[in-house]
Amino acid sequence: MAKEVSNKQVILKHYVTGYPKESDMDFKNTTIKLNVQEGSNAVILKNLYLSCDPYMRGRMSKLDDSYVESFTPGSPITGYGVARVVESGNSNFQKGELVWGMTGWEEYSIVTAPDQTLFKIHDKDVPLTYYTGILGMPGLTAYVGFYEICSPKKGETVFVSAASGAVGQLVGQFAKISGCYVVGSAGTKQKVDLLKSKIGFDEAFNYKEEQDLDAALKRHFPEGIDIYFENVGGKMLDAVLVNMKVRGRIAACGMISQYNLEQTEGVHNLLYLISKRIRFQGFIIFDHYDLYPKYLEMIIPQIKAGNVKYAEDIAVGLESAPSALVGLFSGRNIGKQVVMVSPE
Amino acid sequence: MAKEVSNKQVILKHYVTGYPKESDMDFKNTTIKLNVQEGSNAVILKNLYLSCDPYMRGRMSKLDDSYVESFTPGSPITGYGVARVVESGNSNFQKGELVWGMTGWEEYSIVTAPDQTLFKIHDKDVPLTYYTGILGMPGLTAYVGFYEICSPKKGETVFVSAASGAVGQLVGQFAKISGCYVVGSAGTKQKVDLLKSKIGFDEAFNYKEEQDLDAALKRHFPEGIDIYFENVGGKMLDAVLVNMKVRGRIAACGMISQYNLEQTEGVHNLLYLISKRIRFQGFIIFDHYDLYPKYLEMIIPQIKAGNVKYAEDIAVGLESAPSALVGLFSGRNIGKQVVMVSPE
Repeated sequence: MAKEVSNKQVILKHYVTGYPKESDMDFKNTTIKLNVQEGSNAVILKNLYLSCDPYMRGRMSKLDDSYVESFTPGSPITGYGVARVVESGNSNFQKGELVWGMTGWEEYSIVTAPDQTLFKIHDKDVPLTYYTGILGMPGLTAYVGFYEICSPKKGETVFVSAASGAVGQLVGQFAKISGCYVVGSAGTKQKVDLLKSKIGFDEAFNYKEEQDLDAALKRHFPEGIDIYFENVGGKMLDAVLVNMKVRGRIAACGMISQYNLEQTEGVHNLLYLISKRIRFQGFIIFDHYDLYPKYLEMIIPQIKAGNVKYAEDIAVGLESAPSALVGLFSGRNIGKQVVMVSPE
Repeated sequence: MAKEVSNKQVILKHYVTGYPKESDMDFKNTTIKLNVQEGSNAVILKNLYLSCDPYMRGRMSKLDDSYVESFTPGSPITGYGVARVVESGNSNFQKGELVWGMTGWEEYSIVTAPDQTLFKIHDKDVPLTYYTGILGMPGLTAYVGFYEICSPKKGETVFVSAASGAVGQLVGQFAKISGCYVVGSAGTKQKVDLLKSKIGFDEAFNYKEEQDLDAALKRHFPEGIDIYFENVGGKMLDAVLVNMKVRGRIAACGMISQYNLEQTEGVHNLLYLISKRIRFQGFIIFDHYDLYPKYLEMIIPQIKAGNVKYAEDIAVGLESAPSALVGLFSGRNIGKQVVMVSPE
């Protein structure tokens, strides 16, 4: 007889416009039977850690034509997470194994096609939470965006916005490893201090305290910016365009400042793309998972040697998940925002 | 004794803001002595054809930090042209030879460093005016932007704005040669007819008659745009971003709609760069003159075989030069705008 257990879920109540609120989500108490047909390919996961990522804002809206699908109102939110396989009908996943990948915002999830959506966790000598961040999607995003798209050269200048976030803090460290000069922007003094003292940025500034972003960038980059890792868009992008160097590169994986606006801000300085011969490249990490093994090979030794640090902000309990997700958009998190569902 | 001849000039009266007017320029009657010191490196040119190009608008403003220098108020306008060497102190340029490159808006010009700024014209079995267009800077711009930057593949869809201009009409023809489907936009019915009947675009539309550029693009590209050759910026760019396909490429060599605005238009749809993984690359043709011999080798046989056409709009007489230049910004020219200073 299959064991039936309670399974609390975080549900999207309705599509969201503007800034998301905790009240756009709700909790639902359900139960789940912990069994799968052998040969069904499905697995049942016990979720340990859930990842809060900015791209999830898009999924809270009704999307017609996007690279991600809308969440389904009335159903659990889905996203990246770390989990343990508790039942498996799939010969590639054994009961008891740890995995990371797409799961649900609930205590237990049934994953029907795990071969496409889950990665096995082989290295457990690192915090498991890292598989939502530095060893997961945000880590690969920083790696691909910086190394593959921006082609950094020693001595170049690098600017990172949302620099203390899940991706930005890694870009800064990759820039230092590559012999670049790197400056980050963030939205609180505490984050700025973190970037300079712990993460190792050469400089950092609080964009909310700058009257004039152009002047702030000129202060930090009197000779201009070779590489901009774009996480925010809008006014910051406009100021950066003015301060780019000739043949600069901009990698864009997100524009968090724009996600909650009914009308996005207009960017006025695109003429600089021409006069400065800038390459502005958007990318989606889903296209680049073939590089994940290569990335792990590079990053795990760096973590173990203490050369790379990773700031995390862990909210405890599934009950804290809605406020953790909403907090991304007001910048409340310091470092990668994770939700611990169960310590195991 | 050196011969002294009259030398009419077109002078920039003052720096310009907003749309340039004929009255921003003036004529000056001067004289010039037709002699240079042997070994001085200088040559004296008799100017035959002058080129009117959109980038010249920038040079009419006071520029601090640009890839081009401002014109000097009180001095002749400078730009590309076709000329005959009438005196030479430079062993690389012989009296009587035809050249194209940077010259002055005047009957005769002294060029002090011709090795850096002039190309010899070897092939004279084509209209000499072509060296201001298809065989000059605009031709190389179309070639580099389309082939080198956009990496076209057979069967892709291409959109060209300012499509009947000096660059756009060639991009359309290169697209057809590459097996692409190409649509152009222009600002009059006559230009649209020219694109479809003579130049060989698959389709063309008059952007001034479209209430909704997004709808116009959807009509012509129901499956989306792989390659956008950007000549105009502003609202058109915003509409194009919505209609790009995943992994689309945008090459930008100019944004003529923005040059005369005190405040450029805001572009709101840059988030599509990310969701569609678009590469948006600005370029300046000055960086790519190493490809000029390779381009000539490709294009001259195509011209002689009648496979490539080139629409020109030739204004007669140096007196017509100010109105010809100003006309670029209201779209008065049909095809490449040239000024004939002397038929020889």
